[in-house]
Amino acid sequence: MTGAEPGGWLEAVAGDPPTSARLAEARRLQDMLRVEAAYSRALGAVGQVTPEIADAAASAIETAQIDTARLAQEAAEDGMPVPSLSRQLRAALPGELHGALHKGLTSQDVMDTALVLALRDILDDFETRLDRVDAALADLDARFGNAPLMARTRMQAALPVAVSDRIALWRRPLAGHRDRLAELRPRLLRLQLGGPVGTRGTFHGHGDVIAGHMAKALDLGNPETAWHTDRAPLAELGGWLSMVAGSLGKMGHDIALMTQQGVDAAKLKGGGSSSAMAHKVNPVSAELLVTLARYTAVQLPGLHLALDHEQERSGISWTLEWLILPPMLVATGAALSRAEVLARAIESMGDSRTEEGPSDP
Amino acid sequence: MTGAEPGGWLEAVAGDPPTSARLAEARRLQDMLRVEAAYSRALGAVGQVTPEIADAAASAIETAQIDTARLAQEAAEDGMPVPSLSRQLRAALPGELHGALHKGLTSQDVMDTALVLALRDILDDFETRLDRVDAALADLDARFGNAPLMARTRMQAALPVAVSDRIALWRRPLAGHRDRLAELRPRLLRLQLGGPVGTRGTFHGHGDVIAGHMAKALDLGNPETAWHTDRAPLAELGGWLSMVAGSLGKMGHDIALMTQQGVDAAKLKGGGSSSAMAHKVNPVSAELLVTLARYTAVQLPGLHLALDHEQERSGISWTLEWLILPPMLVATGAALSRAEVLARAIESMGDSRTEEGPSDP
Amino acid sequence: MTGAEPGGWLEAVAGDPPTSARLAEARRLQDMLRVEAAYSRALGAVGQVTPEIADAAASAIETAQIDTARLAQEAAEDGMPVPSLSRQLRAALPGELHGALHKGLTSQDVMDTALVLALRDILDDFETRLDRVDAALADLDARFGNAPLMARTRMQAALPVAVSDRIALWRRPLAGHRDRLAELRPRLLRLQLGGPVGTRGTFHGHGDVIAGHMAKALDLGNPETAWHTDRAPLAELGGWLSMVAGSLGKMGHDIALMTQQGVDAAKLKGGGSSSAMAHKVNPVSAELLVTLARYTAVQLPGLHLALDHEQERSGISWTLEWLILPPMLVATGAALSRAEVLARAIESMGDSRTEEGPSDP
Amino acid sequence: MTGAEPGGWLEAVAGDPPTSARLAEARRLQDMLRVEAAYSRALGAVGQVTPEIADAAASAIETAQIDTARLAQEAAEDGMPVPSLSRQLRAALPGELHGALHKGLTSQDVMDTALVLALRDILDDFETRLDRVDAALADLDARFGNAPLMARTRMQAALPVAVSDRIALWRRPLAGHRDRLAELRPRLLRLQLGGPVGTRGTFHGHGDVIAGHMAKALDLGNPETAWHTDRAPLAELGGWLSMVAGSLGKMGHDIALMTQQGVDAAKLKGGGSSSAMAHKVNPVSAELLVTLARYTAVQLPGLHLALDHEQERSGISWTLEWLILPPMLVATGAALSRAEVLARAIESMGDSRTEEGPSDP
Repeated sequence: MTGAEPGGWLEAVAGDPPTSARLAEARRLQDMLRVEAAYSRALGAVGQVTPEIADAAASAIETAQIDTARLAQEAAEDGMPVPSLSRQLRAALPGELHGALHKGLTSQDVMDTALVLALRDILDDFETRLDRVDAALADLDARFGNAPLMARTRMQAALPVAVSDRIALWRRPLAGHRDRLAELRPRLLRLQLGGPVGTRGTFHGHGDVIAGHMAKALDLGNPETAWHTDRAPLAELGGWLSMVAGSLGKMGHDIALMTQQGVDAAKLKGGGSSSAMAHKVNPVSAELLVTLARYTAVQLPGLHLALDHEQERSGISWTLEWLILPPMLVATGAALSRAEVLARAIESMGDSRTEEGPSDP
Repeated sequence: MTGAEPGGWLEAVAGDPPTSARLAEARRLQDMLRVEAAYSRALGAVGQVTPEIADAAASAIETAQIDTARLAQEAAEDGMPVPSLSRQLRAALPGELHGALHKGLTSQDVMDTALVLALRDILDDFETRLDRVDAALADLDARFGNAPLMARTRMQAALPVAVSDRIALWRRPLAGHRDRLAELRPRLLRLQLGGPVGTRGTFHGHGDVIAGHMAKALDLGNPETAWHTDRAPLAELGGWLSMVAGSLGKMGHDIALMTQQGVDAAKLKGGGSSSAMAHKVNPVSAELLVTLARYTAVQLPGLHLALDHEQERSGISWTLEWLILPPMLVATGAALSRAEVLARAIESMGDSRTEEGPSDP
Repeated sequence: MTGAEPGGWLEAVAGDPPTSARLAEARRLQDMLRVEAAYSRALGAVGQVTPEIADAAASAIETAQIDTARLAQEAAEDGMPVPSLSRQLRAALPGELHGALHKGLTSQDVMDTALVLALRDILDDFETRLDRVDAALADLDARFGNAPLMARTRMQAALPVAVSDRIALWRRPLAGHRDRLAELRPRLLRLQLGGPVGTRGTFHGHGDVIAGHMAKALDLGNPETAWHTDRAPLAELGGWLSMVAGSLGKMGHDIALMTQQGVDAAKLKGGGSSSAMAHKVNPVSAELLVTLARYTAVQLPGLHLALDHEQERSGISWTLEWLILPPMLVATGAALSRAEVLARAIESMGDSRTEEGPSDP
Repeated sequence: MTGAEPGGWLEAVAGDPPTSARLAEARRLQDMLRVEAAYSRALGAVGQVTPEIADAAASAIETAQIDTARLAQEAAEDGMPVPSLSRQLRAALPGELHGALHKGLTSQDVMDTALVLALRDILDDFETRLDRVDAALADLDARFGNAPLMARTRMQAALPVAVSDRIALWRRPLAGHRDRLAELRPRLLRLQLGGPVGTRGTFHGHGDVIAGHMAKALDLGNPETAWHTDRAPLAELGGWLSMVAGSLGKMGHDIALMTQQGVDAAKLKGGGSSSAMAHKVNPVSAELLVTLARYTAVQLPGLHLALDHEQERSGISWTLEWLILPPMLVATGAALSRAEVLARAIESMGDSRTEEGPSDP
């Protein structure tokens, strides 16, 4: 849904331009065309059309000029862009190529597979960013880890520890998130191919072979069946995004608490200025990590409600995914970037409260 | 957050261009300038600057050219746009007008009041649209109300009723929503004026009078105090939006059920086409109403979590509102428009199952 | 759903025994019998049975011994208790009274009206408790209001204010919640009477008069129609509960922050002990207010999803309300009680940071 | 939180007695005592006390009589039961055993490890039930798989398939859930041992060895560090529960749609009766699966918000887990049981609409 405009101030505060760019409609339209082209080529490979026809159709699809205004207008009626896309391609391709165009495929095959192509890129990027956050924290640890810090439990001074102990709390979940991502990838990054009712019944017996060709061409996993109505991998992805943002939110919350006057356990370089109070340096990135964690947590039921994908295709639940998932991706990307910025902006850590603490726990 | 691009297919499916336009950053920047200008004039009215200085400052503010790229860049650091806006205005206005510019005000005064200006317009529009939905339903009732319909409880045929009885279920909540909106307006559509820590302590004793002038100029309610940390009106607004979308979602769900082959209790004109099955007419608008109802319901905790607006200002919670509220407004607007379209698209209603029903309940 | 057992430790921590007692199944069964009895008497009043039969039936219903084990067993099959209740009443009443028993009524009439009877009592109690919280805060203000306090915005020291200014932030939303409750009551505390498909079609033309008699007997609002499928008043109630808990959560968060060593702006009497650190006093009640605020915020979509009450009765959505609403009531009640306890437990407020603050904002 | 009473009608409708029994406070108190005893024995194993003292202490702990009324009363103050438990054990054990009792441990070590013991049993049970659901579906497939069925996409008749195709949609996600559970277990079913601030600093250098002994005794995973503040495994568990309930909810939704008069694609044995309409058979179990799926989806943000476990221990977030997780477990258990019941209650499947469908997609 609406909100952060590309290049606008809200995106600058809470957005993630690289992820938004990867999710832009123009890019996703290209992804859809890639899927259509891979299908055309696969039809050639199984002999449903000649290889020449297949290649010609695929090339024509890949370079087709799509009228996006018309696409939008027709999507309003159809509830999705693929019927218009398909009509436009049909009009753009000479009649002899029509046999290699979309026939047997369904909108969901195209859109789900295109989504997966975008998710693959974004998850690769996120994994790199996770590593960068971890490296920034390792660097912080190297610089300030030995400094003393008063541990606080239930908001109260507890016992003296080292700064290193707290940084370890921030790093520890990241390893788990990498493991989870490795497990999630093969469940998520898979071709969708089912045809109109998800049974691969419209491929003249070649469904599995077509799927094999497409999966190879698109470098995606090749499940034995369609996954039209099993949206658990998307719900699982949502959970992963929210866990990543949530762990970073804990770090942000801690740092915001550490920068309080009186606690004085961390000092930030830069930070936000106030329009009214020139002396203030607001821990904007730290706060924002908490905001983004809450945002992603709130969205999660949207993807889980979409598991109720009734019968052979649910317009209700499928559309809900389109509204919920992209902003979750952007928010998690924003959190990853802000977390690294924040870690790099810490100028000092540790406090001198150890003498105040109890001598014996 | 990201998602529906202006003019793109997702906006065409699930967006609401008028609401998005009202919430566009350029428009909201104008709203902020209106608030700044009203403040300048109020400073003149209370004699803190001369009326001439006040008017000159206000006029300069209203016509100032804001560098939005710089605004975004600086907002990334400050966590909000007002500090940059304030700096840009200061640079744009001659030094003799600086005494009438923003001094004493805080970012939240500007942004919250600007938000309220947008909400006022949007709620006026939504009320009109609620009336239009109701009128479309009244029209449906006039056309098909007397037709028989098998009532269904717990998904099972129950007893025969008239189509009018079911339409009444769709209309009944709308009256309640109008009452709730009337009650909400005075709580929500109010000037925010508090200064840096919300106490009106930076207005040299003129805070209440300044507030009176500003409220009058902006045609907003004039509360006795700032409401910086009392975000309940925004949570209440969220509830209202979700109730409206939820009631329309029930109607959409009913209509989707009525169009099932075998149930055949409603027939739609138009509807969505399938890229694979030419015979199908998908009840896209009906499904979408359910989607939008779920979407708004899911968002609601975001605004309620933001009630935890700690101390004198919470960057965490305030920013969360910016991410959650605009998409809820757009989704509710989309639901209102789709509901009218859907009601107007019904070509026939009623079924002939009455003879199948039990003769005696 | 499960969780806090009556008399157990979790209830002691986060529960609200008075609200749980009012919602106990035994009490709610009595409420259902009250509704059934009121219906029997109303049948007498409209002449459908003789007044003698009506009174005899009502008295028999009110004193009937219900086998709750059987009720549970049969409810598992029926999805609700009323069919079993109705069968048990039928077996308990002599045949000549059967004409005055439940005939024409539907389960939802009984259960919704019974729910409303419980809600009326609970809301009366909550309003009293809101007043008590406010009084405790007024008392705090009288004791510590003049003490200086460093206001904090975005977690950073801002400008000096008085303790009174912060207490005002906690009190201000409470007045709004009282207004909202007054507006909600007439929408919520209403008789449900619709018969099997909500049309009052099974009352031999006496539906409205029967409703009038029942509403008077039960001292409830008397809407012109049933509200079987318009669940907005319950969603609105949920919003109110979450707003109350949310406002108290903000107070709890503030107090937890104020009790931090180094901030030292509030001191609590008592508080939680640690099994490991004898020196600690945990601000348990303050933390708990934040927990309860988050809990209620999270539940809210449950009631809004239930607005999708499809066709003439949704088992899906109705049952969801039974799972979501009672725990929200208990959590809000717990928050109200904890908030008063917490306010009364504050031994001192204010800090001496004013000299550290900036002299000129 | 409150809601379903043991043995009451709401539990019969939507609860899961075995899971509730495993989560009952008496059982969980035993789990806590088991953890305390394992710790005592581990202190003996590392030589901190003599093996005799350790064994004597462990035996005394395991058989200690805990005053649960006092436990509750003190928990209200402490915000958790362990401080009271620890005091009661201290009073029950002779002074010479005190050195082997709880010393060095913290409440969270006891409660988190006790929770994990309960989760292990419940997840074992759930895995068995998943298999039973799958077996019931395999049986359905064997009986009705070859029958024709009109596939429906976006609520509209699409193309004829076989009943087997739809049953496959219900079974397919279950395999994924088993894989996810296998991956989750080692991350979740781990000893918690950290001491007061999670650093294992209070175990006189024996922390890791003590952990090894305890993990072996309790048959739990033995992580290298405490996981006090890394709550991601609990959030992941929540996601798993909601995915399981969500997949079953899709099945319930499908079956409810299939039992509609006019669709007539499934017939159920038994089902719910209506107090007003004797002819009705409500698909109560099918509806309930949808309800439970929505319930668990709604709860999920509670566990993800709890990832914000600030500093070394968050009373706010930890308590939130206690309120959210147990009802999610019960709801998922209820869904698993209802799903099997529902699958076994299907008397016939398939429809005869194939001739109505289009002959060529």
